[in-house]
Amino acid sequence: MPKKDGISLSVIKRLPRYYRFLGMLLQDGTTRISSKELAQRMKLTASQIRQDLNCFGGFGQQGYGYNVESLHQAIGKILGLQRHLPIILVGAGNLGKAIARQMDFDEAGFELIGIFDKSPEVVGRVIRGLTVQDASELEAFCITHHPVVAILTIPREAADSMAQMLVSRGIKGFWNFTTHDISHQLDPSITVENVHLCDSLMTLCYQVNDQLFPDED
Amino acid sequence: MPKKDGISLSVIKRLPRYYRFLGMLLQDGTTRISSKELAQRMKLTASQIRQDLNCFGGFGQQGYGYNVESLHQAIGKILGLQRHLPIILVGAGNLGKAIARQMDFDEAGFELIGIFDKSPEVVGRVIRGLTVQDASELEAFCITHHPVVAILTIPREAADSMAQMLVSRGIKGFWNFTTHDISHQLDPSITVENVHLCDSLMTLCYQVNDQLFPDED
Repeated sequence: MPKKDGISLSVIKRLPRYYRFLGMLLQDGTTRISSKELAQRMKLTASQIRQDLNCFGGFGQQGYGYNVESLHQAIGKILGLQRHLPIILVGAGNLGKAIARQMDFDEAGFELIGIFDKSPEVVGRVIRGLTVQDASELEAFCITHHPVVAILTIPREAADSMAQMLVSRGIKGFWNFTTHDISHQLDPSITVENVHLCDSLMTLCYQVNDQLFPDED
Repeated sequence: MPKKDGISLSVIKRLPRYYRFLGMLLQDGTTRISSKELAQRMKLTASQIRQDLNCFGGFGQQGYGYNVESLHQAIGKILGLQRHLPIILVGAGNLGKAIARQMDFDEAGFELIGIFDKSPEVVGRVIRGLTVQDASELEAFCITHHPVVAILTIPREAADSMAQMLVSRGIKGFWNFTTHDISHQLDPSITVENVHLCDSLMTLCYQVNDQLFPDED
């Protein structure tokens, strides 16, 4: 199925969720599913699902529904998961280490090829089979190994200069865990996916407070 | 400023970002800012900003702009950050430990009061001044200490039953890091803020692949 141009970011952001739900269905042994049933499970409308999948040429057959395995595979291919792009982790503090250890990079379309930190306490340690390298070796590593995506788990103050250096060495995308929005100073062709954990926690704070104290401001 | 009813989730989700940007401006010594300037920094339009803030009664003065400190304080109060709701962490594996160590709970409106795990290797360890307690003590802890929010960093299979038990013991909100959508089986009054790291990484995968291989599907 050919990819159409100009697919909105909101559709793209729903694709991993489809992929995840279909993966669970597969694990449960479900071989086919109607858009109505998939919609119920995903808390979307059936027409929303049909619309989303039509952006990529449509799947599903009238009266049959979707073949779970082939739809799962097709969405994985649309996401480009099969390419296993080389990714590096910059900043092996608490969060960086947890991400390196816990994330299923293979499942998410990447191969973790390097971990970097500047702290002597961390450099030399082995995390997930990779020896943490000194940050001073990062630039040379990029020239030799051509990573295309970098995970930033470094202090906010260091984010801008690090991002600029990495872009100059061929990095095309960032998974940004710093509280700093790095995108404003980068070329628009560079993708930045921000994970603002503190924003997420504050949103939860608002909603729970609103539930507990509805009449107060 | 009185809170209006029925404020959309998209506005609410932008509030932490306003709070963060205003906090940085404060740190930089900026005392006032026009909606136009704030818009440029935040990559929003000035009218979007005025609209958002009007949901809460409006701030800003014609010709003066916003007083950074009072707007920052006001948004913090809207978010309910001053209440420091008691929060517990359930699951002290790699990610749980990193969150316990790294998050600024005070800043995000919470006080971390308990950490739980079922692994004997982790129980008894001290993380951020709190001794990790055995998961079997969790229910009794809830009855005594009344946490209102729980961070779930446990395996996906355990998420549903854990969430149900916690809700029965007074938990009103979840910060859910499991790949499982727990909300479908909970009362709608319970807030669930999902952090799907794998979805976020897959979205990045799509976008970088789209940039690198624009003509392939």
